[in-house]
Amino acid sequence: MNDHPIQSLNELQTQLQKLPGIGPRSAERVAFHLLRESRDYAAQLAGAILAIKDRIIHCRTCYNLTEVDPCSICSNASRDHGEIWVVEQPKDLLALEATGLIHGVYHVLMGHIAPLEGVGPGDLTIDALLDRVRADNVREVILALNPTIEGDGTALHLQSLLAERDVRVSRPARGLAVGTQLEYATVSMLESAIRGRAPM
Amino acid sequence: MNDHPIQSLNELQTQLQKLPGIGPRSAERVAFHLLRESRDYAAQLAGAILAIKDRIIHCRTCYNLTEVDPCSICSNASRDHGEIWVVEQPKDLLALEATGLIHGVYHVLMGHIAPLEGVGPGDLTIDALLDRVRADNVREVILALNPTIEGDGTALHLQSLLAERDVRVSRPARGLAVGTQLEYATVSMLESAIRGRAPM
Repeated sequence: MNDHPIQSLNELQTQLQKLPGIGPRSAERVAFHLLRESRDYAAQLAGAILAIKDRIIHCRTCYNLTEVDPCSICSNASRDHGEIWVVEQPKDLLALEATGLIHGVYHVLMGHIAPLEGVGPGDLTIDALLDRVRADNVREVILALNPTIEGDGTALHLQSLLAERDVRVSRPARGLAVGTQLEYATVSMLESAIRGRAPM
Repeated sequence: MNDHPIQSLNELQTQLQKLPGIGPRSAERVAFHLLRESRDYAAQLAGAILAIKDRIIHCRTCYNLTEVDPCSICSNASRDHGEIWVVEQPKDLLALEATGLIHGVYHVLMGHIAPLEGVGPGDLTIDALLDRVRADNVREVILALNPTIEGDGTALHLQSLLAERDVRVSRPARGLAVGTQLEYATVSMLESAIRGRAPM
């Protein structure tokens, strides 16, 4: 018994600080908030944390996160299974899906090729993508990877693998982001806008 | 089965957003972080959340948060039990204790008098404080409440109750906060500094 702060409170703050965007001050604020909250809420939060670990799996077709396999998108017969949107992460899929503009299906690579971080093509779900293209009568593969060095590199690699197949390979348009002003656009944003200019 | 996002992920984000300082974006970031983290870490975090609700109680002497009753401060014979520092919240106690300058013990009021919020003197631990002052041979009570309207009001109320007893009542010094500049000080900060001026 000593004058140090309470052990279980310390432990919670330590665990909270491992989360992204939560430093010592916000960990303390969250911990004290939980102390004042009902035990019911604490149990719900704790249960929700465990539930995502216990219930969420990867769809064995597209590698999207899901509670059922195949996921609700892959098992949806009204979607266009001849059009595969390839993304790096499940979050990217959610962002595309939220537009309501995608009628096709997805394929989540689970990352991008990054030799310096030790991530090679074999660490991604590329083989599964090629199997799908071969088996599923796919007309078009859209490489919706991030417009970054790693994303572009991965897209080039996929493009070369898909070139041998009878499938159209495309990527989302690049150019000026809607809402930006020309004077603040980066050189690479301007470059893609200039090269990709289109009739009005 | 539909194309909506995953239910358990939704549920976790809903629960996370009830925490202070966590909006929709940070809830999503935390949820995806937990998806990538090990199940061990998720179990530790969930366990830590439940542990504070199950293990932490209020000390029946000073109302500080504690896992043992009486708390480690109240049961520490080497502290000066004749000097009681009265604070509004357990967090205030931690802030004072962190200075290492307090040799006395504490009393946590569990709030301040705020008629507009429906908090009256009877909702605070004032009776318990008066009992301690009566029973424990207390020499000095320091009203370390927040220098706000509610804190000052509560301090005045306590002062009037303690005036009848044979005990010295004081409060922490007020004045210019160290590190501030005169030109940016508020009128009330300057007023307390001027009225409380002391020989160098």
